[in-house]
Amino acid sequence: MDPSVPAAPQGTFQGTLSESGDSAATLYVCVTCLAGEDRETVPRAGRRLHDALADAQRRQDEPPRFRIVEAECLSNCNRGCSVALTGPGRWSYVYGDLGEASVDDLLTGASRYAATKDGLVPWRERPVIFRKGVIARIPPSPPPV
Amino acid sequence: MDPSVPAAPQGTFQGTLSESGDSAATLYVCVTCLAGEDRETVPRAGRRLHDALADAQRRQDEPPRFRIVEAECLSNCNRGCSVALTGPGRWSYVYGDLGEASVDDLLTGASRYAATKDGLVPWRERPVIFRKGVIARIPPSPPPV
Repeated sequence: MDPSVPAAPQGTFQGTLSESGDSAATLYVCVTCLAGEDRETVPRAGRRLHDALADAQRRQDEPPRFRIVEAECLSNCNRGCSVALTGPGRWSYVYGDLGEASVDDLLTGASRYAATKDGLVPWRERPVIFRKGVIARIPPSPPPV
Repeated sequence: MDPSVPAAPQGTFQGTLSESGDSAATLYVCVTCLAGEDRETVPRAGRRLHDALADAQRRQDEPPRFRIVEAECLSNCNRGCSVALTGPGRWSYVYGDLGEASVDDLLTGASRYAATKDGLVPWRERPVIFRKGVIARIPPSPPPV
């Protein structure tokens, strides 16, 4: 690779979404999370979760409805691994207490989130890991005044 | 008031910002928060915090740099009162363990946040309530792919 060309952020979604780019949802995965493991552990728990999610999404038959993007620290270190779901015009959510066993439910929950316009998935349609692991949520930015 | 005209959401900022509307920051305050008080307490702790913040902002000499907007539940009920700082293109933050004694520091911290383009205030410039009370943070949505 030409070293003068900056590489895309490692693990950042590079494919084609089924949603338009402007309204696309993003699943951020904290790749620096230790989740209680030793600081020297390589790869870290958050990186393993990110890579497992990206692998599982690539194996799906349907085009993905959301991007999986790595993040450095979501400031939820006491309850990692952590992810955040966000998107223009949508409520954003942070979830914790996650691990590689959460991959299938995370993909399902994020797809349901991506299918909404406002980020509000009915309670019964949220995976249990979302119901029990919610850390906080933030409304979308209000319209300009 | 003409009853056919819907009222603006109670407590929503109605003034003029010193920043342009498109890039304006918002301080959401959870007005449903009980903060450990009895469910029948009126007004609730979150409502009192919101109103104290709005009053203090109105008393300031300079035009406000951010909007104060009420929100219903930021899903941080164990560590309320809670607020969230957000804005287009910025990292969003959720803070907890707040109360009416936090008003001055909240206004200062939110003004510093509003003065950034990316929401990242240097650690030393963050009020102690932000350093100790951070619940989670979320990156801005990445550019469309």
